[in-house]
Amino acid sequence: MKVCKFGGTSVASAEQIKKVASIIQSDASRRIVVVSAPGKRHSDDVKVTDLLIDVAEAIIAKQPVDDKLAAVLQRYEDNAAGLGLDQKICEMIKEDLQQRCKDVATASVEKVFDLLKASGEDNNAKMIAAYFNSIGMAARYVSPKDGLVVNDAPERTMAISQAYDQLSALKNAAEIIVFPGFFGFTTAGQLRTFDRGGSDITGAILAAAVGAELYENFTDVDCVFSANPKVVNSPAEIVEITYREMRELSYAGFSVFHDEALMPVVKQGIPVNIKNTNNPSAPGTHIMPKRDASKRAVTGISADSGFSILYVSKYLMNREIGFGRKLLQILEEEGISYEHTPSGLDDISVIIRSFQLDEAKENRILQRVTEELYADDVNFRHGFSMIVVVGEGMKYKTGLAASAATAIARTGANIEMINQGSSEVSLSFGVLQKYENEILKELYEEFFSAVSV
Amino acid sequence: MKVCKFGGTSVASAEQIKKVASIIQSDASRRIVVVSAPGKRHSDDVKVTDLLIDVAEAIIAKQPVDDKLAAVLQRYEDNAAGLGLDQKICEMIKEDLQQRCKDVATASVEKVFDLLKASGEDNNAKMIAAYFNSIGMAARYVSPKDGLVVNDAPERTMAISQAYDQLSALKNAAEIIVFPGFFGFTTAGQLRTFDRGGSDITGAILAAAVGAELYENFTDVDCVFSANPKVVNSPAEIVEITYREMRELSYAGFSVFHDEALMPVVKQGIPVNIKNTNNPSAPGTHIMPKRDASKRAVTGISADSGFSILYVSKYLMNREIGFGRKLLQILEEEGISYEHTPSGLDDISVIIRSFQLDEAKENRILQRVTEELYADDVNFRHGFSMIVVVGEGMKYKTGLAASAATAIARTGANIEMINQGSSEVSLSFGVLQKYENEILKELYEEFFSAVSV
Repeated sequence: MKVCKFGGTSVASAEQIKKVASIIQSDASRRIVVVSAPGKRHSDDVKVTDLLIDVAEAIIAKQPVDDKLAAVLQRYEDNAAGLGLDQKICEMIKEDLQQRCKDVATASVEKVFDLLKASGEDNNAKMIAAYFNSIGMAARYVSPKDGLVVNDAPERTMAISQAYDQLSALKNAAEIIVFPGFFGFTTAGQLRTFDRGGSDITGAILAAAVGAELYENFTDVDCVFSANPKVVNSPAEIVEITYREMRELSYAGFSVFHDEALMPVVKQGIPVNIKNTNNPSAPGTHIMPKRDASKRAVTGISADSGFSILYVSKYLMNREIGFGRKLLQILEEEGISYEHTPSGLDDISVIIRSFQLDEAKENRILQRVTEELYADDVNFRHGFSMIVVVGEGMKYKTGLAASAATAIARTGANIEMINQGSSEVSLSFGVLQKYENEILKELYEEFFSAVSV
Repeated sequence: MKVCKFGGTSVASAEQIKKVASIIQSDASRRIVVVSAPGKRHSDDVKVTDLLIDVAEAIIAKQPVDDKLAAVLQRYEDNAAGLGLDQKICEMIKEDLQQRCKDVATASVEKVFDLLKASGEDNNAKMIAAYFNSIGMAARYVSPKDGLVVNDAPERTMAISQAYDQLSALKNAAEIIVFPGFFGFTTAGQLRTFDRGGSDITGAILAAAVGAELYENFTDVDCVFSANPKVVNSPAEIVEITYREMRELSYAGFSVFHDEALMPVVKQGIPVNIKNTNNPSAPGTHIMPKRDASKRAVTGISADSGFSILYVSKYLMNREIGFGRKLLQILEEEGISYEHTPSGLDDISVIIRSFQLDEAKENRILQRVTEELYADDVNFRHGFSMIVVVGEGMKYKTGLAASAATAIARTGANIEMINQGSSEVSLSFGVLQKYENEILKELYEEFFSAVSV
């Protein structure tokens, strides 16, 4: 069986929801449908989630909410009309929203937002289930209350193992299951939203719980591109990509998936297919545990700016067992994660996302490294970009690093850092931010232009 | 003033000791002479230190030592005869050795070796001072007892700050000071030898203590070569090299200096000149804090085998603050130091010298990384070499990494790891051991052949 998740634009209007129905009907193995809240119908439109945030903000500010609630309801009413549904479903949604507003009257700010925002997916799932039934598709709305059990960590909501056990029963359902994305409930009955990855994570959890053969993720693009199309002109489409290639490319320009969302399917080796609701016959991009890497060495190139380099040098550093560990511990105590730690015998650089730093933190780190590690020299430099060349086939291709470095040299940019792990799925370069786009173009030219797409 | 250290072959015979005298006479600023024990006079010869080890082993085995002592004495007698010294000095050395044998009769194994071995330098210093005086050079033997105070760590003997204070008085000596290398005394009067760097470290300590303008290190080669002459045919001579270049090159094929030996002069920025006792007019190699790096980007290329790679992968590793630190901590708790830690988003490799590993350690590490860090995959691979391209000028040269990687690609070898720190004094490559020599030759060709030497 397949689990199909539809993003906001795929369920934004009656027209789009009809496409969803037709997609489900066209393949009998599509048994579980995860839906987002209605998204934008056109570029100037407002997402239902944003309309619900307006309602939540009014509640918190103790301002009237009626107009704002009406705006939300209007979207459902438009869709119900377009889908030929009667007013009953809209009445139910109206009552649900009014009840939520009452329920949160004295709740914490966080709960107000969670409960209001989650209604977007929840009510859309109810309407889509109603529509499916109205056209003769036996369907059933299932609430996350019935099994999607999450942990109690407010900042990092994740499904707990109990969820997988309970949701696995859905594989035996006689009807098509319509399940709202984006939220779950703690064992104490508290609603929690997935901060990162939204509805994608719900789909991945369900796919893992029922042991789906495929997790189809319907969005509004035909595929994932091999480079950021905002920088590179008409980049090649990626037909097949492995989980770890997807991860390594997640730096930037590859925002189709939030990588944490994939975790449940990665653990079980379930393949993912990114498809376009508006062009369902296009093959899309397949994300899988393994793939035939013989066709092209490089799968994609991504780039991201906003990196800083912490440089530390000390004579005979590599003789000192524990130096690197102590340095990383100082960063850890400041809550800082890092990307890479290239090193010489007597120096080490730590590549850090700059947003994690501020002057006070930098000064504390500089002082501690000087005083506790007796470093000869320690400093921060800012304004770097990381360029990552990714491909499962890279490890079989001699001379690839040479080609990449030569392409970068053609732009006149100096390479500040090179990092190639022994896995060889990725090769990353640190460069000055100003060269980022030019290097991305040159690397794309190097690895893709000669190959027919 | 200059401190001059002479290695074993430079003081192996009367003929060589005469060269030393002539070198000291030719420059009035050469005021402190540090000497090794007599080394090999020809390739089949035995070093006095090795003869003394024979004596020590006999003492430990409770076997007769007379023949073995006689072999040691014979060397001094030959030298005394060649230098025209009377029997008095040889009598004194004989008594000294006999006294040492008595002193260590009930001592620990370590003390037997230390006391016997140290006599090689000590007695040679006495003889050389006597020779200097015999030809009219006012000279004075100084014992390490008079100031070379070392710490009490048996495994890592180092001079303590008191030593520098006491030895600084030598700068005012009227005579040429002849000082034995290789050993010092603890504050409790215990003799300790320098395990690493031998007499080089004594010279460096004296140079730092008296604030020498130059530390001259006389050996039997004209210079340090830019690559291992056993692999590369007639490599270029290095005229100038910085401390940190020397350090980065210390992997292999650059065994003129043990890098820890340089520490005392590095701290004070005292330049070092490596010269040839047998060709003192050759300029030698100058090791200095800074140098003009504009002439040639690459100073040298070194290579070393015997590396292992610990590979660890885990989905979403880079989101996990503390993962790298915990991994390094596990290694630290096993007493393992590492060279580099190249990484991707979800994997990290730790490059380790293989001699630090054994099956039991590897299994413990694999188990801990799996159980404590919940890694998806963890394994060790062995049989790697590291090739290091070093040069202060590299940071100014665009395309250097490209040239190096291209040269390696020409050998058909796959690059397993690339590490370039932000300092850019060095660029290191991990490759399969079997490609090491071929790559070294190809890189030498790339960076040195086009430049006239």
